[in-house]
Amino acid sequence: MSQQECLFCKIIKREIPGEIVYEDDQVLAFNDIAPQAPTHILVIPKTHITTLNDIEESQQALVGRLTYIAAKLAKERGFAEDGYRVVMNCNEQGGQTVYHIHLHLMGGRHFTWPAG
Amino acid sequence: MSQQECLFCKIIKREIPGEIVYEDDQVLAFNDIAPQAPTHILVIPKTHITTLNDIEESQQALVGRLTYIAAKLAKERGFAEDGYRVVMNCNEQGGQTVYHIHLHLMGGRHFTWPAG
Repeated sequence: MSQQECLFCKIIKREIPGEIVYEDDQVLAFNDIAPQAPTHILVIPKTHITTLNDIEESQQALVGRLTYIAAKLAKERGFAEDGYRVVMNCNEQGGQTVYHIHLHLMGGRHFTWPAG
Repeated sequence: MSQQECLFCKIIKREIPGEIVYEDDQVLAFNDIAPQAPTHILVIPKTHITTLNDIEESQQALVGRLTYIAAKLAKERGFAEDGYRVVMNCNEQGGQTVYHIHLHLMGGRHFTWPAG
């Protein structure tokens, strides 16, 4: 899929709507449209990266920022101390459905093990 | 828990054994002792960070490196194209059991949704 057709790039560009909960120059966060927890937010880089396999070594700080911002949102929502789970899926067996990397922040309930 | 008592810091220091599969100056990776998938590796920073809530903005590149190295290991193991899942748990509700942040790399099977 080209970047032009990417669903998440379109949300970044406001070409399609999203329930945006956080934005900075590098990262966008919005509610998952099929939430699996009381809070279920997707945190994505504004740079199009197709899968985890496509991350360049120079993009490590950007990828780490997804987790840093997830923790910031968890603190703001009040469930950081109780706990939460962050997940990234790669390709078909991992359960990736949109081919622009995204970190799932899920909080507000207990999470079982294993993670799927 | 102090850093002196931390299980994962002890593995880093070779004070207790671990099935180490990757190491560099910043990161260590070893097999999970209770694997939930054909491949189940923990990727950890050598710096002690207790939970996701404790990540400093200056540590974003280090945290992103955990995912970057997970993808590298997935490629080496041959399941990167089929797919895999990476998970980090924070505090009790997230299912965190060792209080030194760690990324679970799980591959070699299909993963269901939601992730626990």
